[in-house]
Parts: sequence; C-alpha cells; structure tokens
Amino acid sequence: MSSPVAWSRAINSSPIDRGRLERCAQEIAEAGRELGALGWTPATSSNFSMRLDASHAAVTISGRDKGRLGIDDIMVVDFDGRAVGTEARPSAETALHTQVYRRFPAAGAVLHTHSRAQSVASRLYAARGVVRFEGWELQKAIAGYTTHESVLDLPVFPNTQDMSELVARVDAWLDAGKPLHGYLIDGHGIYTWGKDMPETRRHLEAFEFLLNCELDLLRLKGTPT
Amino acid sequence: MSSPVAWSRAINSSPIDRGRLERCAQEIAEAGRELGALGWTPATSSNFSMRLDASHAAVTISGRDKGRLGIDDIMVVDFDGRAVGTEARPSAETALHTQVYRRFPAAGAVLHTHSRAQSVASRLYAARGVVRFEGWELQKAIAGYTTHESVLDLPVFPNTQDMSELVARVDAWLDAGKPLHGYLIDGHGIYTWGKDMPETRRHLEAFEFLLNCELDLLRLKGTPT
Amino acid sequence: MSSPVAWSRAINSSPIDRGRLERCAQEIAEAGRELGALGWTPATSSNFSMRLDASHAAVTISGRDKGRLGIDDIMVVDFDGRAVGTEARPSAETALHTQVYRRFPAAGAVLHTHSRAQSVASRLYAARGVVRFEGWELQKAIAGYTTHESVLDLPVFPNTQDMSELVARVDAWLDAGKPLHGYLIDGHGIYTWGKDMPETRRHLEAFEFLLNCELDLLRLKGTPT
Amino acid sequence: MSSPVAWSRAINSSPIDRGRLERCAQEIAEAGRELGALGWTPATSSNFSMRLDASHAAVTISGRDKGRLGIDDIMVVDFDGRAVGTEARPSAETALHTQVYRRFPAAGAVLHTHSRAQSVASRLYAARGVVRFEGWELQKAIAGYTTHESVLDLPVFPNTQDMSELVARVDAWLDAGKPLHGYLIDGHGIYTWGKDMPETRRHLEAFEFLLNCELDLLRLKGTPT
Repeated sequence: MSSPVAWSRAINSSPIDRGRLERCAQEIAEAGRELGALGWTPATSSNFSMRLDASHAAVTISGRDKGRLGIDDIMVVDFDGRAVGTEARPSAETALHTQVYRRFPAAGAVLHTHSRAQSVASRLYAARGVVRFEGWELQKAIAGYTTHESVLDLPVFPNTQDMSELVARVDAWLDAGKPLHGYLIDGHGIYTWGKDMPETRRHLEAFEFLLNCELDLLRLKGTPT
Repeated sequence: MSSPVAWSRAINSSPIDRGRLERCAQEIAEAGRELGALGWTPATSSNFSMRLDASHAAVTISGRDKGRLGIDDIMVVDFDGRAVGTEARPSAETALHTQVYRRFPAAGAVLHTHSRAQSVASRLYAARGVVRFEGWELQKAIAGYTTHESVLDLPVFPNTQDMSELVARVDAWLDAGKPLHGYLIDGHGIYTWGKDMPETRRHLEAFEFLLNCELDLLRLKGTPT
Repeated sequence: MSSPVAWSRAINSSPIDRGRLERCAQEIAEAGRELGALGWTPATSSNFSMRLDASHAAVTISGRDKGRLGIDDIMVVDFDGRAVGTEARPSAETALHTQVYRRFPAAGAVLHTHSRAQSVASRLYAARGVVRFEGWELQKAIAGYTTHESVLDLPVFPNTQDMSELVARVDAWLDAGKPLHGYLIDGHGIYTWGKDMPETRRHLEAFEFLLNCELDLLRLKGTPT
Repeated sequence: MSSPVAWSRAINSSPIDRGRLERCAQEIAEAGRELGALGWTPATSSNFSMRLDASHAAVTISGRDKGRLGIDDIMVVDFDGRAVGTEARPSAETALHTQVYRRFPAAGAVLHTHSRAQSVASRLYAARGVVRFEGWELQKAIAGYTTHESVLDLPVFPNTQDMSELVARVDAWLDAGKPLHGYLIDGHGIYTWGKDMPETRRHLEAFEFLLNCELDLLRLKGTPT
C-alpha cells in the first residue's frame, strides 16, 4: 500500500472501510507533522497508528520521516501485525501497537514518540521500573483521573530488539491488574493511547509535560524523589 | 452558546453587548493560539476570560484545546459563575476568574496558564508560600512597578479541587492588604490579570520570564535564595 | 512621529534623509519581529536603533511590543537623545544608544535585548563584573576576532534607573582603552552593536550563544570557571 | 559563481553536470533554512556540501547566513578545495568536507553545524577525546547500527585554525581502522556525513539528540558516565 492508487486496488478486495482508512491516514499524518515540529520524532524514529475495525489498524511504514508523513506513508496491518494489501514493511514495533488494540477494545489510536525527556527519564528511572507522578494538576489530563491527589504510574520496561519480550512485559503488567495508560522503554521512548487521536495526543502531551516537570524537580532538588 | 448562531439568539435576549462579546472572543482565541504555540497550555489545560460589563465575562468552555480556540469555544458567565444563554459548561475554575473581576473593578482580562516553569516553581516554592522577585529589570513590566529595586511577591496557594477554598485563599491575601498581580497554585499553574488583554499578556510574559530566571539561578547556585 | 504620515511632515522640515529613515525603520521592525519570536524581548522590553547620519538615529518608541513593530513604532532622536519632529517619547534607555553612535563612528546599529540567558548571566557574573569567553570558535563571529585562542570580555555593569550612571560606566571602560563589543546590565539584558544591522545581529546571536554555552558549562561543572 | 547567471557561463566550460549542481544547491539551501531555524547555525557559522562527481563538490560560500541560503550562496570546489569557475572564497573549512569525499567514496553530503549541545559537549569531553553512546535506541539511526546494544563513538578533536592539522587528526583516526560517522571539534561543532542529504540529516539529528541526552544525564547524575 505504497500509494493511494495502490490502496484502491488492495482495499477494494479486502474488508477495510476505505473512507475510514483515508481519514485515519490523514489524522496520523497530521499528528506526525505536529509532533515532528516539536522535536519528538528525531531521525525518522517513532511510529503511529489508528484502529480501523475489530481486527485491523493503520500504521506508519518503517523508516519514513515522521515530520513529513503523507497518506502513502501509512499502511494496513491486521492485529497479528501482518501487512494487508501491500508489500510495504510495517514498523518493527507494530506488535506493540496491535497489542494495545487487542487488550483495550476502546483504544482508537496509539502514539510512540521519542522526545529527549522521554529518553532521558527512561534511563534515569529504569532501575526503579516506574515513574510515579503525584501532586500535579495535569494528571487530570489522563482519562479517568479527576484529581491531583491521585497516583499515576508510568512503567519503564527494559529495551530489547525482540518485540515479543516487550509484548510479554506489557501483558504481565496488565495481567497483574495494574492500571496502564502508557509506558516507557529504557533508552528509547514512550507508548501511549486513547479512545481517539485527540485523547491520545492529550495523553502524550500530558506525559511529556509531567516527565519534563519531574526532571526539572530532580535537577533542582538534587536527588530522585 | 456553542456557536455564533446560538450566540445571536441567546445574546439578543440578554443585556450583553454582542459586539463587545465578539471582539473579546476573538482576543481570547488569538491569545489561546499564541500561548498554546509557546507550550503554556498543555493537554487542554488552562483557561482565559475577558470582562464584558459590570456583571458578565466571556470565558473559555471547559476541555477545549486552548491552542485551537474558535469563537464558539467561548461562553458568557455572570460573576457568580453561572452560564448565560447557553447549555455549555464553563471551566471548573471560572470562580477564580469572576473573583478577579469582582475584586478588581479595573481588571479587563484574566489568563490562567500551565507552563512547565509555572508548574515546577509552584512545587518548589509551595512550602514557603511565595516566590519573591528582587533585582530584575523585568519587574517593571508589572503595572505600578517603576524600578528593579522593588520587591515583587507572587504567592503560591495549595492546590485543591474545591474552588471555594482557593477563592478564600485569594480573598484572605487581598483582605490582608497585600498587593496581588497574580498567583501560583501548587503543582498547577498561574493566574494573572490586567486592565486589558495586552497588559494581561505582558504580565503573564513577565511572570513566566521571571520564574524561568529564578529557576535558572537556583540550578546554578545550588540553593534557593 | 507616530505614523508615516506624521513622518512626511516632520522629516520634510528637518535634515533627515527620508528614504534612509524608512529603510532603517523597516530593518528595525524586521529585527524586532525575529528577535521577539526567539523570546528575547519579553513583555515589551528591549529597544533597537540605527544610525541615520552624523547626529541622528532612528529608535524604537517606548513601551511597544517589540515582536510586533511597525514602522510607526520608530522615531528619530538626535545624539543628545532629544525627539526630532515628534511628540513621542523615546525609550528611557535612548542615552545608551546615542552614546554608542557618538563613541563609535563606524557603528550603524544598536540592539538591546533581554533574553533569559542574558538576564541570568548578568546576575551570576555581576560581582565579578565581566563574563570572559575563551576557547569558543564562535568568538570569531565578533568583528576583529580571528581565532578561538583569543580572550573576549563582556562587562557586566550594575543596574540603575539613572541612565547617566550607566553612560559613565561605559565611558570609563572605553576611556581605560579596553575593547568593548557589548555589555550586560545586572538583572537586565545586553547591549551590542556593529557596522550595520546584519553585523549587529551576528554579534547579538554570538553573545547569546556564548552566554548559553557558559551557563551550560557552569551547570555541568558545578563551579564558575 | 556568485549567481545562477555566473553559474551558466562558468559551468558550461567545465565538466560539472549543471542539473546536478542546481539540485544539490537547492538541497543545501533547504537544509540550511531548516537547520538555521533550529538554531544550529548561529551567527553565520556552519557549512554544508554535497558531492557533484568523483572530483567536485558543491559547498557553501564563506560568511553567508546559513538560515537564509539561496542557490547563489553555493559554489563548486574540486577535492583539493580549489574554487571552480568562480572568484568566490570557499569556507576555510572546505578541506574537512573534501577529505570526507576522498576517504568515503559513498559519501554524498557533509553537514557541519554548531549547536549549543555540540559546542558544550565538545568542551566537556575534549580531555577524554571521545563521547561514547551506549544503550540509546537512537544509535540505530546511524547507518550500520542495528541495536542499542552497540557502542557508538564520536571523537572530539582539538580545535585549531590550521585545517591541515584537523585533516591529519581525522586521517589518523581512520588509518587506525576505527569506525567514524562524525566528529566534534573542541569548542566548535560537529561534522557528519551520509550517502545523501536525507541520511546525513538523519545522522545529524541523531547525534544532536544523543548529545543532548548525554548532557541531560550528566546534569541529573552529577558526574560524567
């Protein structure tokens, strides 16, 4: 699915809703441009997706500049991560996207970015395994949180080039019944999601803001809280 | 008042000056776009208002993206915080805006933002209850200050989801006769105001700048001044 | 001289070259927009000027938003700081601009800005009275410097609301025969100049860069060098 | 070669492919505008080039504002650094560009920039002679690196105004058989390259990101790793 022309042919012979695919591709491309302009997707890193239906997602093609995405940089995968109607190679990290859609039926979008605060915080908190946010009004930007008097945990998983290991870490966290709205990977970046693209971007902005605030407090207070 | 069309109907049967409302809504939306671009309104946080007359203000509707405000994201409230001519829900923090208009008859605009420096400084200075600025030329940007040899206090109030507690804190400060040009809320952001939108934005820019400078000095000198 | 129309009348009865004034006003306004966008002119601070002839300069009118300058925000002063052909009030700091034109016949433009690095460095180095740059390639951006193996001194003068005190400090430095390409004022900002606007902006960019680098090294090494 | 008109005449009597030169000049100018907007080319510093053929490169003319490059700010040099078909003076650092094209036959573009992180890191790691990156996912953005479990070394060479000394340092590093994808010069900036402009920009973005992350970790952990 390397172009809209290719889309027509491939999608017409599949169960994918062509209109929804186009709208999703546009939302993904717009998010990429805006997140790229913020410097959160350096050096062609990062990947983005949206749910198409109960078993398919639209996801960015590997290696593209995320700040200059067009709709032909988006492809379709099923929830096992297999390309649908295209020879293009999905991002190596597609398995982490499809896991979210499988485990959270209400999730409509997944964003994985790579900002400096995300990368640095992931290194600093890797040994502890979690960044804990307390007392920030902006915790309320995460769906379901209604007060700054809550505790918001963002786990940090060890990095690996083997996606199945990461999938297992996320499954283990969820199977333990702990709430999960996003996670860091050590030396890498963040994954977060929401019911649709606006909520997912709100979650991403909130985590980015909170991570920067925590790092600022660390610099000013001298020791990790 | 979810759209200009709705405005026409609702406002025609109220004492609000329709022309003034439109101009205020445009000034608020423009401020939102520019402050959003600076990253001071992350994750749909922040809210803005302008005085319409002796008993009404225009204020942003809850939950909208403050960097993408249109005039239909603005509604009318009276100074008790009740919506006028609309079913829309005003921001939970509307009471802090209307308090300013009640207590400062010359106040024409109120801006509440949520920058990283505002949030981090509020945490660092919460125990002390105030950030004190001395020796900065930019203190002169606050109306009434004519020299860097003055002392400018920005109080930090404890955060709460109960707005009446915050209203009472602000009232107590003012009733003690202390000058007040803005305040921080712990883990949250800043409120500031001025006679009109340009003066209010000048105050906001000045406080943001001064907070960043104080945090930089703290990082460089090692201990709070 | 509050508008181009006013300019015509006032300038026609004075010895000012009207064409040069318009070109200077445009260069100043463009510099203001670009420096404002960088955040170096917060809260209507900062002021800019260009030499018109052997005894006049164009300078920004006091209190205007430096990021939104139009040519009617620029006025003419003589080198004693008196307004020419206008009722507008020149910036209080005009005396510091005209001093540069009097003492440096080749100076064609003066920029005074107010960035965070300029303000913070001025506080940190005020007691020492100078920021000394050594070993930075970018010292070569200052006219006359051809190697990073030179020493570049940027003095820090105490702040005062009395401009004649600052003028005397600058005169004393120059009368001592020390090279001067710019200076900081404590808690305030920077003054720098050059033969024309491009060279002056290059000097300003270089000092801003070097100050940021010095502050970064201080943060990383722990003690002032 | 100070203008496209001059190009026509000069290039028509040389073996340079005129079409390729124009495309390269446009790619260089676009890179300059985008890198300048990021603040990585302060005060007319930095220089950029692209390979034209087996013995010529297009390179920026000395002293131009790298954020405002037009195609007439680009000139042709041979791999000995001599200007071809123009009186313009190539950057003093042209020898470092042509060295890359001579030693790496696959190199198609070279970028030299001057960001704050590049300059500060070069000072901090000068004594050690190298910045070593380990454990960052973004190391994979450098061609040939496929895992964060690799080690990526960025050497820091002493600064000098004598380019032949720097050329010799780079030659010695390569002759020792050590991998080289870029290098810092102390107090100065970075050189990096790739097969074409997109890969070179990806390398530059990755090194800038990694340097910022290392400096952040240093600030947070207190001692160099």
